[in-house]
Amino acid sequence: MKKLVNDVHNVVKETLEGFALAHADMVEVHLDPDFVTRATPKANGKVGLVSGGGSGHEPLHAGFVGLGMLDAAVPGAVFTSPTPDPILEATKAADHGAGVLHIVKNYTGDVLNFETAAEMAEMEDIEVRSVVVNDDVAVEDSLYTAGRRGVAGTVFVEKLAGAAAERGDDLDKVTEIAQRVNDEMRSMGLALGPCTVPHAGTPSFDLGEDEIELGIGIHGEPGYRRGKMETADALVEELYIKVRDDLKLEKGQRVITLVNGMGGTPSSELYICHRRLAQLLEADSIKIARTMVGNYVTSLEMPGVSVSLLRVDDEMLELFDAPVATPAWK
Amino acid sequence: MKKLVNDVHNVVKETLEGFALAHADMVEVHLDPDFVTRATPKANGKVGLVSGGGSGHEPLHAGFVGLGMLDAAVPGAVFTSPTPDPILEATKAADHGAGVLHIVKNYTGDVLNFETAAEMAEMEDIEVRSVVVNDDVAVEDSLYTAGRRGVAGTVFVEKLAGAAAERGDDLDKVTEIAQRVNDEMRSMGLALGPCTVPHAGTPSFDLGEDEIELGIGIHGEPGYRRGKMETADALVEELYIKVRDDLKLEKGQRVITLVNGMGGTPSSELYICHRRLAQLLEADSIKIARTMVGNYVTSLEMPGVSVSLLRVDDEMLELFDAPVATPAWK
Repeated sequence: MKKLVNDVHNVVKETLEGFALAHADMVEVHLDPDFVTRATPKANGKVGLVSGGGSGHEPLHAGFVGLGMLDAAVPGAVFTSPTPDPILEATKAADHGAGVLHIVKNYTGDVLNFETAAEMAEMEDIEVRSVVVNDDVAVEDSLYTAGRRGVAGTVFVEKLAGAAAERGDDLDKVTEIAQRVNDEMRSMGLALGPCTVPHAGTPSFDLGEDEIELGIGIHGEPGYRRGKMETADALVEELYIKVRDDLKLEKGQRVITLVNGMGGTPSSELYICHRRLAQLLEADSIKIARTMVGNYVTSLEMPGVSVSLLRVDDEMLELFDAPVATPAWK
Repeated sequence: MKKLVNDVHNVVKETLEGFALAHADMVEVHLDPDFVTRATPKANGKVGLVSGGGSGHEPLHAGFVGLGMLDAAVPGAVFTSPTPDPILEATKAADHGAGVLHIVKNYTGDVLNFETAAEMAEMEDIEVRSVVVNDDVAVEDSLYTAGRRGVAGTVFVEKLAGAAAERGDDLDKVTEIAQRVNDEMRSMGLALGPCTVPHAGTPSFDLGEDEIELGIGIHGEPGYRRGKMETADALVEELYIKVRDDLKLEKGQRVITLVNGMGGTPSSELYICHRRLAQLLEADSIKIARTMVGNYVTSLEMPGVSVSLLRVDDEMLELFDAPVATPAWK
């Protein structure tokens, strides 16, 4: 294994230390327990947003702490849910008297530990709601998950619910928006190869020289089929059709697109994928309202891509366009 | 080779088409010949900035077209200099009556073709100046280069000269600033592995299982030594010392740091590298004025990192902080 790390057991801690040094104007990093908050807290009376999960998906979640998105993020060990304790501390830090929304990707450990932390926070008189993100159409039930997995669409939830909290919506309304975003989006990804978790030291799965995995999870969990390598156009079409059909997209509807790199994919390949996605949407008379192309929810250095579509109305578009200032989304 | 591409000969064209679809609010893409301009041109009477070079280093250069940076970018084939014809067309498009600065990375083909295009532009009464970027301290003379190579520091030149042009500096002054930025910066990189040029189909070089290349070029050109894998801290220290000593950095001076991912490096590893760089600068009593961590000048999916330092004065810092709105730097 060749990685730019020191002791493999310190990867998360040293990443956070570097992150703190790089973005001291925007975030504050707390260690033991590990969580990240805004450098300048939100005004009192506004709803707080907390998300988190295993590390290795950067910039998710800590990269999205800041104005217009999260109040706090809780990074677990690589591909490992954070424990309730840091989630509780993050929740307390994110509470400004109007309650806190937990945005939780649908993995058994994450759901359980956020629930426990929410119960602990309620005992300290902090009102907590929770939205579980499950945008991945690839499979029902999976390694680590009952139901569908939460993947790249999580950034949509963080952005739109974040904007709602920022404009002063109450906890009911912010929760409703987060849930609506989750309901109106679907995602699916594919991998050309595996990634290597530092403390494991070996690739998370094997693929043949000309083989790819469709419907891959963001921890390398199995998808719905393995197949031979095909053109970008053919692969994007397969992802698109699954996402479109599950979302029951119809002519004339508007979407925000996200072509998300898994970490090891050149930017050029992401744009080639976006090109095809835009062609397919146009052919189906679905309007692209906004576009995102880049590394938002990664799996370390995995080569691969995911496609997410969020069906939007005017309010959602306004929230998408609202001001944002975080390390990874400006 | 597994890559998200279609016909390998259409990689640049399809990337540009996807780029145009994704960023129509910011850029306009011209094909045959290929170049990228701002969607909203600069006001008349301001200096135009043009850069370009082989593709495969995205977001450089097209990702930096927009307010506060470039007026036009010219992407060649992957790792191949653009020909004079698109450079001439980009230069004409970037001219708003106050002359045009060419920002050219020091590769023989780039220098030659930009020179030819400059001569052709002068015959059409456009005044053209040129600054050749050569920030890589790793080697003197190299594959494709006489003298030192131009690498990640190129973004500093584009940002600061772009800000100078935007505020209305004349061609002499913008050129002087671009030259000053080049003189005040140094870079060096390392690779943990190769990348694969799509139309070549095989990795650009071989490295042993535990071997790395120090001083690597952005096209995979040889560096100054191959060695065994070491810790991130040790590797960053080696890069830092070479850069610091060549730049003759002294106590109390201020720098902007750039920890640049080569394309296949997880964000976490870049922050671990930044952490060490910040520690080393602090130990040397050199002040970090601003920080950049991310993929700015890549080599397709190469796993690796480069460290750049730009020594700044107040004027340079002001230019760095000036407004910017491009697809890759906002």
